[in-house]
Amino acid sequence: MASTPGQVIKCKAAVAWEAGKSLVIEEVEVAPPQAMEVRVKILFTSLCHTDVFFWEAKGQTPVFPRILGHEAAGIVESVGEGVTDLQPGDHVLPVFTGECKECDHCKSEESNMCSLLRIDPDRGVMIGDGKSRFSINGKPIYHFLGTSTFSEYTVVHVGCLAKINPLAPLETVCVLSCGISTGFGATVNVAKPKKGSSVAVFGLGAVGLAAAEGARVSGASRIIGVDLNSDRFEQAKKFGVTEFVNPKDHDRPVQEVIAEMTGGGVDRSVECTGNINAMISAFECVHDGWGVAVLVGVPPKDAVFKTSPVNFLCERTLKGTFYGNYKPRTDIPCLVEKYMNKEMELEKFITHEVPFSEINKAFDLMVSGEGLRCLIRMEN
Amino acid sequence: MASTPGQVIKCKAAVAWEAGKSLVIEEVEVAPPQAMEVRVKILFTSLCHTDVFFWEAKGQTPVFPRILGHEAAGIVESVGEGVTDLQPGDHVLPVFTGECKECDHCKSEESNMCSLLRIDPDRGVMIGDGKSRFSINGKPIYHFLGTSTFSEYTVVHVGCLAKINPLAPLETVCVLSCGISTGFGATVNVAKPKKGSSVAVFGLGAVGLAAAEGARVSGASRIIGVDLNSDRFEQAKKFGVTEFVNPKDHDRPVQEVIAEMTGGGVDRSVECTGNINAMISAFECVHDGWGVAVLVGVPPKDAVFKTSPVNFLCERTLKGTFYGNYKPRTDIPCLVEKYMNKEMELEKFITHEVPFSEINKAFDLMVSGEGLRCLIRMEN
Repeated sequence: MASTPGQVIKCKAAVAWEAGKSLVIEEVEVAPPQAMEVRVKILFTSLCHTDVFFWEAKGQTPVFPRILGHEAAGIVESVGEGVTDLQPGDHVLPVFTGECKECDHCKSEESNMCSLLRIDPDRGVMIGDGKSRFSINGKPIYHFLGTSTFSEYTVVHVGCLAKINPLAPLETVCVLSCGISTGFGATVNVAKPKKGSSVAVFGLGAVGLAAAEGARVSGASRIIGVDLNSDRFEQAKKFGVTEFVNPKDHDRPVQEVIAEMTGGGVDRSVECTGNINAMISAFECVHDGWGVAVLVGVPPKDAVFKTSPVNFLCERTLKGTFYGNYKPRTDIPCLVEKYMNKEMELEKFITHEVPFSEINKAFDLMVSGEGLRCLIRMEN
Repeated sequence: MASTPGQVIKCKAAVAWEAGKSLVIEEVEVAPPQAMEVRVKILFTSLCHTDVFFWEAKGQTPVFPRILGHEAAGIVESVGEGVTDLQPGDHVLPVFTGECKECDHCKSEESNMCSLLRIDPDRGVMIGDGKSRFSINGKPIYHFLGTSTFSEYTVVHVGCLAKINPLAPLETVCVLSCGISTGFGATVNVAKPKKGSSVAVFGLGAVGLAAAEGARVSGASRIIGVDLNSDRFEQAKKFGVTEFVNPKDHDRPVQEVIAEMTGGGVDRSVECTGNINAMISAFECVHDGWGVAVLVGVPPKDAVFKTSPVNFLCERTLKGTFYGNYKPRTDIPCLVEKYMNKEMELEKFITHEVPFSEINKAFDLMVSGEGLRCLIRMEN
């Protein structure tokens, strides 16, 4: 890589030319990183629902042509002016939201919603100069979530890169870049179940199962999985789920079913579907006096959360979280260590693998609801 | 008092014969305490909105004739079978909700919503035998909230009595029996503002001002009072309120006004009105990333809390509290000590005083919104 710093790199990237159309592997030009930016060689990436959501662009602002991808692991190729805490060769996880370390949110112990680098799916350019670093024949190709990891090389703001232990296997820890941290953190950082407690998890996709993994690691004794697809129950057992409820099997609200199962409600619940009715159920199924419900799933824009205020007055708590309340640069390296110390399991989330040339297969799997995470290997 | 234990006591009580009609001072018979009950000589009581609410009985179950009153201080006259931690002469505050020390809620560090002795405004009898201890000519007069303190003597379940320091002035600490603890605890136990933080308090009656007092004691640097009555602002300054917002003075939602005043929202808010729109505003006016809103005020039965779930997902928290999350027997004695150590002020809440014979004046003051607490002195 000695000759590439400061130069434009030509490499392969999967370009989304239009909403919902198969990605096309193209040769793109990747400009050198500018001030506070880092160019990263991506080794592994995986597909998350959010990629599919903005690829389909149903009700979202269409930003095309675009290089999607935000869950990944790679190695720093070169750094731009002013970057002091990363250097070529460092192992990194790009993250769709950042940590500038200077704003009120970064200075707060409680927030990870950086004012400067907070997620902005409508932005297709770098925040420094408002331009893209990707192009084909001089025509710009837009960025996605500041990461665009479906490319052999990408340019990322330094505040959106977590520098991790170089001994960590990149093909595994890449899933900590988004979904798994989101679910795991929602439980361990926000819901904080005590040892021996009961936890309900709504939605048994990768994020929900990561929430269940968080409950398992926290020592919860009952982990109740809720999903409309009973086929997911068998797999969920590997993630510590002990009981299952399919709302379709009952003719009354699922919160009533759970309250009956648990003598008044669960101690904690984590909502990972984004469905507004599931959100309401997740709140109303926690025990009065001490129950805490945590919202993770992103709802449609016009959704309205409705409940009787008495449900709050009986000492229930409702919180929301974003990226599991992890600060990308400060906390994600520690989460990688947690994996290295065998305090959490990651391999079981990776159910499929494809070479980069077959990235559209990963989309097919996600759209059909098959598996959890499909690893995309950049080098064949 | 040597001759009264085990005997029926004849004394004066203010009886509410009908909804909304002036109380009548009558001679009542107070039966001796039964198992796990305590007979208390009330020395001071004060009037709280909840008394007026159930006296008016608009939309509430009418339970008449009844002896209202639940904010008070007194001295134990005699104890029933099985009562071991109280004895005649002990100074006590009766509390409208209890602490049995045996149920899941009492065993939980987080809850004060005792399963056995939780508030039940529809119950007019003792839980032991389903009977009243009050009568006039053999006809039962009903209890209220298990306390019925508008009587020279009353019978209370031992679990609803806080034994306090005998040196504490009963005419002052009696306000800790309900409203002041409710507001103060909502801030210090639930909202937990940090030193230097900003707190909005909705509703500047006694409970709201107690919440402000909690913010002042916690070292909040900005305490924003919100009320529809600007006349309350001057008084509120004594309770640490630094800024005022009257929603009527603005043509946009008060949460927007507060967000603008504070660069994105307050760190904490406490809602003490029970108005559903105020509840929504109190939630939406807290800062994303770390804001916590606490609901205290009791809404009408059919009220619905509505908000966009995105307000939660941006890391805001909404909690409800009941009696400031204080466990009556465990925590209220400590709160009395806090007052004795001058860590909180109580005198400023008591703005009026009447002899027991003029108890209806206290109702007039509350109905007209005058003052904060009217102390009712049982002995002239």
